[in-house]
Amino acid sequence: MSSNTHHLRNGTAKTTQPRKAITLETMNQHLRKADYAVRGRLAIRAEELREKLKEQNHNLPFVEVVNANIGNPQAMDQRPITFFRQVLALVQYPDLLESEAATTIFPADARERASVLLREIGSVGAYSQSQGVPYIRQSIADFIAQRDGFAADPNDIYLAGGASSAVTSLMTTICNGPQTAVMIPVPQYPLYSASLTIENATAVPYLLDESTCWGTDTAYIASVIRQTIASGVNLKAIVVINPCNPTGSCLTASEIKDIISLAAEHCFMVIADEVYQTNIYEGEFFSFKRMLRELQRDFPGKYDSVELASLHSTSKGMVGECGQRGGYMELIGVDPEVREELYKLVSISLCPVVTGQVLTELMVNPPKEGDESYPLYKQEYDTIYTRLRERALTLFEAFKEMEGVTCQQPKGAMYLFPTITLPPNAIKEAQRRNEEPDEFYCMQLLESTGVCVVPGSGFGQKDGTFHFRTTFLAPGKEYVDRMLQFHKEFLKKFS
Amino acid sequence: MSSNTHHLRNGTAKTTQPRKAITLETMNQHLRKADYAVRGRLAIRAEELREKLKEQNHNLPFVEVVNANIGNPQAMDQRPITFFRQVLALVQYPDLLESEAATTIFPADARERASVLLREIGSVGAYSQSQGVPYIRQSIADFIAQRDGFAADPNDIYLAGGASSAVTSLMTTICNGPQTAVMIPVPQYPLYSASLTIENATAVPYLLDESTCWGTDTAYIASVIRQTIASGVNLKAIVVINPCNPTGSCLTASEIKDIISLAAEHCFMVIADEVYQTNIYEGEFFSFKRMLRELQRDFPGKYDSVELASLHSTSKGMVGECGQRGGYMELIGVDPEVREELYKLVSISLCPVVTGQVLTELMVNPPKEGDESYPLYKQEYDTIYTRLRERALTLFEAFKEMEGVTCQQPKGAMYLFPTITLPPNAIKEAQRRNEEPDEFYCMQLLESTGVCVVPGSGFGQKDGTFHFRTTFLAPGKEYVDRMLQFHKEFLKKFS
Repeated sequence: MSSNTHHLRNGTAKTTQPRKAITLETMNQHLRKADYAVRGRLAIRAEELREKLKEQNHNLPFVEVVNANIGNPQAMDQRPITFFRQVLALVQYPDLLESEAATTIFPADARERASVLLREIGSVGAYSQSQGVPYIRQSIADFIAQRDGFAADPNDIYLAGGASSAVTSLMTTICNGPQTAVMIPVPQYPLYSASLTIENATAVPYLLDESTCWGTDTAYIASVIRQTIASGVNLKAIVVINPCNPTGSCLTASEIKDIISLAAEHCFMVIADEVYQTNIYEGEFFSFKRMLRELQRDFPGKYDSVELASLHSTSKGMVGECGQRGGYMELIGVDPEVREELYKLVSISLCPVVTGQVLTELMVNPPKEGDESYPLYKQEYDTIYTRLRERALTLFEAFKEMEGVTCQQPKGAMYLFPTITLPPNAIKEAQRRNEEPDEFYCMQLLESTGVCVVPGSGFGQKDGTFHFRTTFLAPGKEYVDRMLQFHKEFLKKFS
Repeated sequence: MSSNTHHLRNGTAKTTQPRKAITLETMNQHLRKADYAVRGRLAIRAEELREKLKEQNHNLPFVEVVNANIGNPQAMDQRPITFFRQVLALVQYPDLLESEAATTIFPADARERASVLLREIGSVGAYSQSQGVPYIRQSIADFIAQRDGFAADPNDIYLAGGASSAVTSLMTTICNGPQTAVMIPVPQYPLYSASLTIENATAVPYLLDESTCWGTDTAYIASVIRQTIASGVNLKAIVVINPCNPTGSCLTASEIKDIISLAAEHCFMVIADEVYQTNIYEGEFFSFKRMLRELQRDFPGKYDSVELASLHSTSKGMVGECGQRGGYMELIGVDPEVREELYKLVSISLCPVVTGQVLTELMVNPPKEGDESYPLYKQEYDTIYTRLRERALTLFEAFKEMEGVTCQQPKGAMYLFPTITLPPNAIKEAQRRNEEPDEFYCMQLLESTGVCVVPGSGFGQKDGTFHFRTTFLAPGKEYVDRMLQFHKEFLKKFS
């Protein structure tokens, strides 16, 4: 502002900052410390490059920006599942249910589902119960019961505006200052480290084992637990992401049961991020809830007190409806008084978006064999699944061709997390620029190819190793070829 | 669980609690301390009564529960505005835009708007920019410019999942422990006190003046500011709710300019909750943004550094789409580095629900005169407005008939906040039950009439005074008559 610019006699201008109440120094220092790389510096630069591409003489060596930094399938070529969108359109505009013309557009089962949901909800423009619409919670409980073979209780379900929102509420509830320790995997989805930093709690990393396809090593985790407890903090929870973001791995039943056993033995909560539970390309998904119920059944009394939070979302899987903000959390074994406090917290935000709740109901209760919409649903679902699997393998095969790059077989989720061996000169150049070496690599990749990925340092990695996370959602192989070409030139330049 | 129940020899059962990681004692103690009365004990009891009414022999002295505790118009008889829902249906199911049959259902301007939005957004199932879709932010900026007569910048707009979510993000950003003081009105919407308690910041109450229709007394507020600063805390912000929840009052231009002047003088941010800006039944709405720009124009230099956050929402006004979670915050004069930190915070939750963003665009850019949808829009809008105004006056007139009840003329928002004079015996009975006197009154009202209101103690009130907040959204006068009848009997019982 001109009034704050004083022209000095020698012709230079000195700007005095206007006095502000809220500055970097006075604001929330915990927030200031938090890192969230998925939408960080690289993502912002990618947006700038996308804008630049619109200019006539942009001089950029690529014609498109590929956002492989974020699992956002409908920003790529993934189309939504028709049945879901039909029901969502009907609940938004119920007059369609009365319209003769609409009967030619919407199948009967979509109209029927919309009617049932509207009867239960009233208007999607009204606040629902803070925990979510009772009917939808019942549907979710039915889905869990069928998935696991063990009953589920609708009162244990908390709808949320995406799983991220559920995680944030949970962390706010359980964290009580730096004495609260929560174990998080390394690498991890940085929502966890960021929310713990903001809550001023202590994140205790446990490394995943790249050599066993990013598995969990029980003996090692037990040793981290013992060290954590010995250090005097209160270990209150462990976060497990399965299938894993960013590594693309899946845990075995016994790995999961081992973690639950450690939780029972040392009395801490298990937070199971299971949003990728249908993104399975090899092997099988075992839910923490089912494994817990099996342990409770097989060892009566021993596992009764285990506290489990399991998260699911409409953003991932074959649904891929990120912008709709649907998701839920199931809470098992949590102290009723604590649940009341969590209820109070979520009620301050009134309710999760009701259309997101509707979409969650559709996800857990899709058209069944024999329903009018089933054939199209099945075809769309299978096409998305097959395509994701193919793209994962295409990228995986490409990484095999890249010198100094090794990548674990993709088993689940939407990501590959290859190791990259960087030449010493590249590491030196990064240090000179005051960047992490893998951040430097990723920024160079973005500037050269338009492909935006996230450096491993944004997720955490074993010291001295370097990775990046890339989704395999983008169509075509052209962007992969650009990556291969860049990698060759990068190695040549810095070798 | 049975394994934790031990039957003692004398036949009584003693339950030992299983060991839990997260208990009332170990959880977040700040959350535990927070109060949020709008969805508290009375709301939970109202839900129980609603369930009980479904039983055949319920024996309750009323046939319906009236949720006058929460401004949720579409849970009453308010219908959504047709144009908004048409566009929302079309963006949910874009195939409708290609359908011949759909042209008979949807007016051309709704189809055109949906096409424009889809072109800008892509899919509503994709994550948008964390701050919101650029096109929608531009629309909001245009609306603000037209409303205020001063330019607005789309980069200053942050879409949010309802204004509550924006407030929470803002509080998380500005609060840095108990040294951070934020002034809040008394009475206030308890989102503010609750979020400050959770952030472990210091809420400094300033009383609104019931005698001037809940106005702000500048000299008194200045004295509170001086005392606050003298006490050694860092006064960082003031919250102003205008039109006011819960009092139904509206501030004058000069009251607003006085508050801005105090903020400029003492360097604190103004947080202006303006979600009820179109719920005006008497007088005029003056936005803080416009008043700030006028001061900046009229007194060059003096007000340049003022930091203002202004909130708006799709849940209130004639839109009333609470469940859709739309809203935004405009930030003026905020330090760019602090804004980057706020951006990081909101990006951790990825993005506000995209359909809520679409609805926000529709709210700020509704059909204009000459558009195909304008006549219906206008008719619906005016009907809702007229009905709200009528219902406000009906309730206001009824309160005049109630002995010991005085109520200020309703000017704005969706609430009345009458004073109730409680007989000493009623106060004694409340103390005996360990309840606040107005909480006792409201609970008796609920049990006798099914009408759920919120006690004044949930919003804060001058010591020794008692109030309750009621919406005037419910249809009919029958529930009002039940309240009158109850009040008479209550006075008789306790006099």
